[in-house]
Order: sequence, then C-alpha cells, then structure tokens
Amino acid sequence: MNPIRLAIVGLGKIARDQHLPAIAATPGIALAAIASRNATLDGVAHFDTLEALLAEAPEIEAVALCTPPQGRRAQAAQALAAGKHVLLEKPPGATVSEIAPLVDAAREAGLTLFATWHSRFAPAVEPARDFLAAHAPRSVEITWKEDVRVWHPGQDWIFEPGGLGVFDPGINALSILTRILPRPLFLTGATLAFPENRAAPIAAELDFTDATGLPIHAVFDFLQTGPQSWDIAIDSAGGRLLLSSGGARLTRDGAVLVDEKEAEYAGIYRHFVDLIGRGACDVDLAPLGHVADAFMLGRRTKAAPFSW
Amino acid sequence: MNPIRLAIVGLGKIARDQHLPAIAATPGIALAAIASRNATLDGVAHFDTLEALLAEAPEIEAVALCTPPQGRRAQAAQALAAGKHVLLEKPPGATVSEIAPLVDAAREAGLTLFATWHSRFAPAVEPARDFLAAHAPRSVEITWKEDVRVWHPGQDWIFEPGGLGVFDPGINALSILTRILPRPLFLTGATLAFPENRAAPIAAELDFTDATGLPIHAVFDFLQTGPQSWDIAIDSAGGRLLLSSGGARLTRDGAVLVDEKEAEYAGIYRHFVDLIGRGACDVDLAPLGHVADAFMLGRRTKAAPFSW
Repeated sequence: MNPIRLAIVGLGKIARDQHLPAIAATPGIALAAIASRNATLDGVAHFDTLEALLAEAPEIEAVALCTPPQGRRAQAAQALAAGKHVLLEKPPGATVSEIAPLVDAAREAGLTLFATWHSRFAPAVEPARDFLAAHAPRSVEITWKEDVRVWHPGQDWIFEPGGLGVFDPGINALSILTRILPRPLFLTGATLAFPENRAAPIAAELDFTDATGLPIHAVFDFLQTGPQSWDIAIDSAGGRLLLSSGGARLTRDGAVLVDEKEAEYAGIYRHFVDLIGRGACDVDLAPLGHVADAFMLGRRTKAAPFSW
Repeated sequence: MNPIRLAIVGLGKIARDQHLPAIAATPGIALAAIASRNATLDGVAHFDTLEALLAEAPEIEAVALCTPPQGRRAQAAQALAAGKHVLLEKPPGATVSEIAPLVDAAREAGLTLFATWHSRFAPAVEPARDFLAAHAPRSVEITWKEDVRVWHPGQDWIFEPGGLGVFDPGINALSILTRILPRPLFLTGATLAFPENRAAPIAAELDFTDATGLPIHAVFDFLQTGPQSWDIAIDSAGGRLLLSSGGARLTRDGAVLVDEKEAEYAGIYRHFVDLIGRGACDVDLAPLGHVADAFMLGRRTKAAPFSW
C-alpha cells in the first residue's frame, strides 16, 4: 500500500520539533505538502493557506493541524468537508462544544478525526494506568512547572483568549491524569493568576476529586526557570508512584519501573495510521472539559505583567 | 398508587416561588419534608440538613435540590447513595465534569437523575423548535436583561466562583436556544464584564455559530432596571420569529402564535414523575458546557464594583 499523503498546516515550533521527525520515522504515512503563511520546507510542496492546499493538491489524504487552537475548528471543518482525515494538535479547539459537530462530520463522511494528547503517548503512562487499576490511589499531587519563554518563545497567541496560558502545558498533565486514574475526576476548586496585561493565566492551583473522594492537587506555573517539573506523584495501596519527566519515567517507592526515551509523536502517528486504516475517530474531550471547568469555577487573582 | 414522597433541600426564593406551588399542583408527587438550615414550612417535617433527613426520614423517595450550585454535587451524590431520586435545579452543578459520575451512580442504582432547565418548559419553546425544524434559521439575536437586585436579592453566592453571575439567568436563554435550534451550536467569541469586587460576571456578550455558519449573538445584562427583557429573535426562511417573556410568547412576523401563562415548574414536576415511573434519567449538559466555554474563551473586562 502507498503511504498516506499528509500535509502539515502551520509549520511552527511544534511541527518542526516533533511532527516532522515523527512522520519521517512512521511507516504508512509520508509528508507531501506544507500549508504555512511564513514557513517553507525544502523539497516539500508549499501552499500559503489551507484553502489553497485543498484546492490545488487533491492528492493529499490527511492533514495535521499544528496552528494555534483558536482557528483549528474552522480548518478542521474545511478539511473534513474536502474529504481529508484530520489530526488535531492539543488542545483540539478553543471551546469544548465546537468539537462534537466535527466528530459528526467525520463519522458521516467515513473519515478519521484524531484529537491528540501527546503526553498520553509517553512511555510510562500505560504502565501507570495498569498499576493504578490494581492498586487504588489514595492521593495525587501534580507539579507542572515550565518556562514559557523557553517552550513558547514569543507566542503571543498563548496568552490570548482561547490560548489557555499555563493550561497549554497543564492540559498535558490532565491528559495523563484522566488516562491513568481508574475513575472520572472533577474539579472542586481553583485559583487562576492572570498577568495584568494578558488574557490568559500564567499560574494555577487546582483541586480535583472523584466519586470516592480521592484528593488530587495540582500546581501549574509558567515562570519556572532552572530545572523544569512535569511530575505526578501518587500515593497508592501499592506504594508511592512517581511519574516524572512528563511521563517518560516511573518509579515505585524510589525503584525505577520505566525510564525510556520520549517518543510521544511517533506513537501519535502510528495511532493516526491505525485509525485511518480502521476508519475510526479518537476524540476524548475530558482534558479540555476540565480546563473549561477551571476557568468557570476558578477564582481569579492578579499576577505581575508579563513580557517576553 | 401513592404519590412519590418528595423532600425539598434548600427552602429559598426559588423553592417558595416555584417549587412549592408546582408540587402542590402535580398529581403523583407530594411534599413530605424540608431540609433547610434557616427556613421551615408549617405542617411539613423539617430537618436541618440533608444528612439528618436521609438518616431520619427513610420514607422519603425523592429530593429536589434547590441549594446554590456550588454544593449540589455532593448533596446529589449523598441522596443517590441513599437510594433517592434526585431533581437538580439549574445549573446542575458548579462544573460540567462533576455530573457524569452522578449519572453513572443513578443508572447503576436504577434511580432517576433529572437536571432541570426550567425555561425549556415555557409554553412557546416546543412550538418554536417545531417551526425551526421546518424553516431554517438565518440569524439569532438574544437579549437577556434583568435586575439582579429584584430576582436574586442579597444572594451573594451568585457572584462567587461557581455562581455564574449573569450566566445564572443567561443559561436559561442557552437552555432554550440549544433546544430550539436544529443543529448543535458553539461559541466563537465572548466578552465578560466582572465587577472589580466580585468573582463572577455581571454582563456578557457572546457570539455563537453552528456547522452551517448561522450567526447567533447574545447580550446578557444583570443591571436592567425598568422593563425586563428575555427575548430570542430569529430570522428564518419562514419569517421573523420572536420568542419573548422568557419563552411564554411567540410571534411570527408580528402575529401571535403562542401567548400563554407561564407554568414551567408544573411541567418540570410532571416530567420528574414520568421519569421516575420509567426509571429514566434526563441530563443535558449542553447549556452549562457553553457557559464553561464562555469563561474559557471569553475576554474579561472590568465593570464597576457591585453592591446590593
């Protein structure tokens, strides 16, 4: 079989750092075009816009939307209407409600819509899930602290409405948490710190629980310099689990269970190829739903103005 | 058959104004107890708390939770665990995500969980829905302006996180809109005005659309003195519909189609009795989902401090 002909829409940092190498390493799919206003890639067909790509490159079978979330829904709808499979970077959109009509459109057309949560493809996530299915969690502490200036340099969209601010990384923690815990969780309280000159939070503190009363506490910070923290610590009936390095490493009472090289996007593209082969969709809105709940229920505080 | 023995939890303004007369007028259900910290009702058994009621009045079969939304989930979980059917005032909770575990608990126990949206029981709502199923809408304009000092006098919880502020009435408009439109809608932009001394918005302006691009504009205001406005105007292929008085009146190009006395809560209790008889749940989270989306995507502006 010929590999699936894929176009990347939005050739920014995440596309270059993650998507390009993962696509190159994945059998069954091949990069055939780029749609990007500003950026080009040597040896790959280029279009200024998604509209131009859809009009002029009918051989493209799938698109990966790596543009900011505020415009993704409209692009996904266009691509699905043109008969393309669609991969959405995280978060899948600027609202929760906008995604259901896309799923309906994909299903009606027999196309794949894949709302990715890259952190769920980290190597220690499934082992942690299996462990917690057998050993009940007793408490969870999430520490997700990174330096926005390193990971999103100059990306003003992240502090615009819909850009989610510190929830852009924080939603990665929530995507892992909703995967590894045995029961659905829900927010019970939150504090969101908004820089005076920005429309999205730069820090957040969250409390969740589940139907059994499991205490879950999370701290998100976008101004962490020095060592970065992407840790989930879980006291369980089977000992203390520590999922660290964003899900690449897992220890139990200090003993290493998993410590592997990160290969999240390779997992994403393998899954995308599999979904297309099966004519299936994979869209889980739980992580974005928790973020929307945090904006609705959270108490706002003021933080110092932010500039790059 | 004996009527269902119902307890009201939270005997505040909405319970006295709406629930008591509706229960009295509905066959098949009867008020048998009140749980309320401060209020009592002559001739009806009284308990200080839901816990006391569940412990001491095992004959109660159903509870109507008329307490503020921030505490409703825990109360609903307790009542369901005690084998009671549960009616939730709107909004059903302080977050969207907290409701799914309640639905699971109700279904597992064979109990009814009914998340009410009282405005959907207004007399012109179903006629408007039927009309729009036959005559495609072309644009929608919502004007939902009321005086918080008249309708929620002194209720500070409404301006606390989870109280929703102006979305407490605004969600009524959204509950109608999501019922009458032929397709799911989603938010595309919003502005939320927060009084400097309060944690919830006092005014909002919202834009929605659907998969066909239908323009939907909404203005919510909590400081409307004089005439109050609860109107949804819809230009359609079959003329201009005006749903006014919160859904009690419907005109088409100025000609009256429906103009009936409001009887929303009588409809709610008839439906609750029917759901219990059928062992069914009725939980639609779409209106609350749109509100959460508005908090997440909305741009915040400052409004003057608010005091009663």
